[in-house]
Amino acid sequence: MPKHIVLDTDPGIDDALAILLALASPEIVLDGISAIHGNASTAQVTTNALSILELAKASHVPVYKGCEIPLVQPSLLSPETHGNTGLGYANLSAPLNQARAQHGCDYLIEQIMSHPKEITLVAIGPLTNVALAIRKEPRIVENVKEVFIMGGAIRHQGNTTPLAEYNTYVDPHAAHMVFHSGMPMTLTPLDVTYQCIFLKEDLDRLLKIDSPITKFIADSTRFYMEFHDEYQKIDGCVINDPMTLALTFMPEICDYEDLYVDVDISTGVGLGNTFADFYNYEKKAPNMKVALGVRPRMFMELFLERMEKLANSLS
Amino acid sequence: MPKHIVLDTDPGIDDALAILLALASPEIVLDGISAIHGNASTAQVTTNALSILELAKASHVPVYKGCEIPLVQPSLLSPETHGNTGLGYANLSAPLNQARAQHGCDYLIEQIMSHPKEITLVAIGPLTNVALAIRKEPRIVENVKEVFIMGGAIRHQGNTTPLAEYNTYVDPHAAHMVFHSGMPMTLTPLDVTYQCIFLKEDLDRLLKIDSPITKFIADSTRFYMEFHDEYQKIDGCVINDPMTLALTFMPEICDYEDLYVDVDISTGVGLGNTFADFYNYEKKAPNMKVALGVRPRMFMELFLERMEKLANSLS
Amino acid sequence: MPKHIVLDTDPGIDDALAILLALASPEIVLDGISAIHGNASTAQVTTNALSILELAKASHVPVYKGCEIPLVQPSLLSPETHGNTGLGYANLSAPLNQARAQHGCDYLIEQIMSHPKEITLVAIGPLTNVALAIRKEPRIVENVKEVFIMGGAIRHQGNTTPLAEYNTYVDPHAAHMVFHSGMPMTLTPLDVTYQCIFLKEDLDRLLKIDSPITKFIADSTRFYMEFHDEYQKIDGCVINDPMTLALTFMPEICDYEDLYVDVDISTGVGLGNTFADFYNYEKKAPNMKVALGVRPRMFMELFLERMEKLANSLS
Amino acid sequence: MPKHIVLDTDPGIDDALAILLALASPEIVLDGISAIHGNASTAQVTTNALSILELAKASHVPVYKGCEIPLVQPSLLSPETHGNTGLGYANLSAPLNQARAQHGCDYLIEQIMSHPKEITLVAIGPLTNVALAIRKEPRIVENVKEVFIMGGAIRHQGNTTPLAEYNTYVDPHAAHMVFHSGMPMTLTPLDVTYQCIFLKEDLDRLLKIDSPITKFIADSTRFYMEFHDEYQKIDGCVINDPMTLALTFMPEICDYEDLYVDVDISTGVGLGNTFADFYNYEKKAPNMKVALGVRPRMFMELFLERMEKLANSLS
Repeated sequence: MPKHIVLDTDPGIDDALAILLALASPEIVLDGISAIHGNASTAQVTTNALSILELAKASHVPVYKGCEIPLVQPSLLSPETHGNTGLGYANLSAPLNQARAQHGCDYLIEQIMSHPKEITLVAIGPLTNVALAIRKEPRIVENVKEVFIMGGAIRHQGNTTPLAEYNTYVDPHAAHMVFHSGMPMTLTPLDVTYQCIFLKEDLDRLLKIDSPITKFIADSTRFYMEFHDEYQKIDGCVINDPMTLALTFMPEICDYEDLYVDVDISTGVGLGNTFADFYNYEKKAPNMKVALGVRPRMFMELFLERMEKLANSLS
Repeated sequence: MPKHIVLDTDPGIDDALAILLALASPEIVLDGISAIHGNASTAQVTTNALSILELAKASHVPVYKGCEIPLVQPSLLSPETHGNTGLGYANLSAPLNQARAQHGCDYLIEQIMSHPKEITLVAIGPLTNVALAIRKEPRIVENVKEVFIMGGAIRHQGNTTPLAEYNTYVDPHAAHMVFHSGMPMTLTPLDVTYQCIFLKEDLDRLLKIDSPITKFIADSTRFYMEFHDEYQKIDGCVINDPMTLALTFMPEICDYEDLYVDVDISTGVGLGNTFADFYNYEKKAPNMKVALGVRPRMFMELFLERMEKLANSLS
Repeated sequence: MPKHIVLDTDPGIDDALAILLALASPEIVLDGISAIHGNASTAQVTTNALSILELAKASHVPVYKGCEIPLVQPSLLSPETHGNTGLGYANLSAPLNQARAQHGCDYLIEQIMSHPKEITLVAIGPLTNVALAIRKEPRIVENVKEVFIMGGAIRHQGNTTPLAEYNTYVDPHAAHMVFHSGMPMTLTPLDVTYQCIFLKEDLDRLLKIDSPITKFIADSTRFYMEFHDEYQKIDGCVINDPMTLALTFMPEICDYEDLYVDVDISTGVGLGNTFADFYNYEKKAPNMKVALGVRPRMFMELFLERMEKLANSLS
Repeated sequence: MPKHIVLDTDPGIDDALAILLALASPEIVLDGISAIHGNASTAQVTTNALSILELAKASHVPVYKGCEIPLVQPSLLSPETHGNTGLGYANLSAPLNQARAQHGCDYLIEQIMSHPKEITLVAIGPLTNVALAIRKEPRIVENVKEVFIMGGAIRHQGNTTPLAEYNTYVDPHAAHMVFHSGMPMTLTPLDVTYQCIFLKEDLDRLLKIDSPITKFIADSTRFYMEFHDEYQKIDGCVINDPMTLALTFMPEICDYEDLYVDVDISTGVGLGNTFADFYNYEKKAPNMKVALGVRPRMFMELFLERMEKLANSLS
């Protein structure tokens, strides 16, 4: 029985790769996508989600538009990381389909409440939609099967401020609400994603297949690699989001610790900092499972195989 | 043409009086009530709203249940101010009606969006519902006619911490979202409400009419007066909420200044502090009208007359 | 027996007037001055203090140079309020004397410790010197007779940010240290000083005497009046510091409350906000006497008479 | 030419070992010690410093008493880590000598100013003394040769809160002042010290020599090892301070990065957090050298040899 996945996402280059990985993986079924501001505006990432689904001939997957700005903080898009459209140098056709009329938060609520304990929520953008859904319908906390979150930097430096990771920094209050919600969560922080570098040679392997899929991967990640090279001296690019998605069906890619994790929502230098209470000073029960160790090539092999399979199947 | 009012409220003793004043005032029509945590739990205040409407033979007014806890802060009810049921020593019958199925936030959105520029929102509890509605449907900002808010303490000391007023302190992040939303707002802070004391002799005047309404006012305010006497050495009680409601149709009760007002959401001693930039240091445009002067007896006469009229009409 | 006064000050226009008032008042003896950054740099205000003393033929009063910058916050001088030299349009001769070699903090410590319970400290600038002295020699807390502080804005808006008064905002951490030190303190916040306006007609009265003193008052306050007119629409100028000084021997100018007062040192919008716990939510004992009521003309008459006497005596 | 060292310290078990290492190392001369609150009260650690010097027959080294409490934060001693006297189970004789009359801050200032560019300051406790000295005499910044600081946790979890290391947490404002002072600094954070574990077998090696020195090391570290076992599941104990001291003459024990390091002084969960801007988001020049790599046994061999030599020389 494949897992039923709802993806809350802001595509975004690595988000797009997560969508493709979801479609290429028989272990899971992608029930629907709720779009959230982040790498680009909500309008743009909604369009992107629809285009990617159409590129992969998966236009049956419904897309729902979510919140347009963070709860409290001012909007913070990331054109320098993901390009103006959010998809780097890729130039996808405008989608034929439209987003459904229902709001993304309401979709999350309805999907979870109508399939108690069956839905796996994978949240790989800022957590505004998820936070709103929890406050509007607190019972989703008990009815969601599990939640996988790409976000945070536990011991690792931030990728947006010295202390904060992008998704958490964009809406730290939403992250705070989600982290303290009581949902069964697994966090994929930069500590593990920054060990999984998609290299030029990985791309070259995919490009042996001539396909719109591999062309899209090449065009989008080229921009992303240039960013990583310029800002972080990393040769290749960090594909946070597909790794998070992969953990839903291949948990052995990572090693985990059960930890109490919090987000700094003070108005100082620590805003958006995610941290774990390793020594349990606060005497609080763990609120999530955190991926702190990773087998990078195990993930990368999976990713490459699935992309090859998808590219071949659509050629 | 009477104004159409939607009341977001947590009854609460003075909230109950605001509901009664709305029902007794021909200048306005009470379209509906969204209930919010605050003086008591959301479940309790929803029940209270229904009971009060039934007491006043106004069970046609729909009630909608809203959010159950604040966005980020832990829940903070106020049994010491309003009693365990939220209505002091009053002991109303359990309501015959139930709340509608729709969520309070969705009711706010639907009511405003389906009557563009016609709805006056009066928010006299913590602002969680209003904040959620704004983030879910940003277009209500342009489509609401006007918003009256009971909250804040500009120059006045707080009634919950040295700096913070109760409604704002309970959900400062929601207040921050609402204050910076761009809606046309009028704020009624403690600076004016603490000048409007409902005195023992005001109550005695009402009690000349023997009616369930006057009995309810007596039973509920008796508790409230004991609180004000014990904690704040005030002889009588401060009825913040009906005064805010009254401004919707009798604005001349107060004098106003157009000001830039902000809420402190830092994690320090100032949490929930509302303040105005009187000297315009920040060079920001005013974001609301703030009531800073008041004619207390003008309001109190209005309130007493309307309560007498209501009591007589229902006897 | 006159009171022995040590003045910690950053002259500054109104500081200069406080020095003159001290010299003109037989009820007190000005033992010495410690100079502190604030209205101008420590070097400049040290020079100013020496020049003012020489102008008033009081060069026997020793001046000590204190700290050059705030404890934690970056330096914040106020040339727009006090002019580039700190003394408005006044153009005093360079002083013949120099500051003593001892550091201002050490002077405060030595003066207080060698005259137990006899020294009245009047601190009318940022509190960096006083805070340092307390940490270096905690026993001054018990050995100082009393401390008068010009600073804070309790209910009044700030004069530097919407919430913060200048002296407190410049070094909020020092103010926090002093406020919680346990010294017997009297605070003169903007709530009272902003009711004491030195008017054009007050100046005209002084100018009937032709003297270097009255010329200095005219030249310095003219700049100050222009500032108040431009930034705060006040016709005249607020002379905070001589009023604080006057309270040392004429306490009946003000009415006081014993209150627990704190300073916000969080890193948000409230930085430097001073506030009182009027309702005693925190259950803490009062830590100072706060002047909250004032008889403005009682002070102004005193000030004018003393300036007239001084001007006449030096003509 | 040996380096001239001034040690600002709060002995404390590992501080005591640093004093012993300083005395045993011909590469350096210990000019004097300024005592600071921390592991125990200032009075207690002053006594401890004198006793340790006498134990090692080095009573010629002068000891100066410094500040008694942190700048802003309430006092936070650590009897659970270092025992009630600060020296674990060790029971040293009361010292015959007394601390000098001069205050610790003034000693730091005088020593540095009278030997320009010659003094190496090693600060291994909370930074209150150093911060006060900088504000009182800013010229020490340019006249100190170099400063070695034990403090902070850059990527490592805190040893006092989830984010904060003890020395920094005890007086974060002092650390902030020192870090931003412009002095030439080298930081030894928990990232390296927690890799240098003093093991039971290291102790056994020392105990082959029967000497008051080895007995002291055994008695003090036994307590410390029990703490590390109970709270952090570490078998052995982390001797932060002698490692910091060792870097003054054997820098090759560590690898360093030039980084911009800051301390969180907000009033939230991050208070006392030290962090580096590895990606240079803030575009600020490095303000210190940070030890991030370490050769643990290179240090431990040095430490053991020197302790053996000292023990033998005093037997």
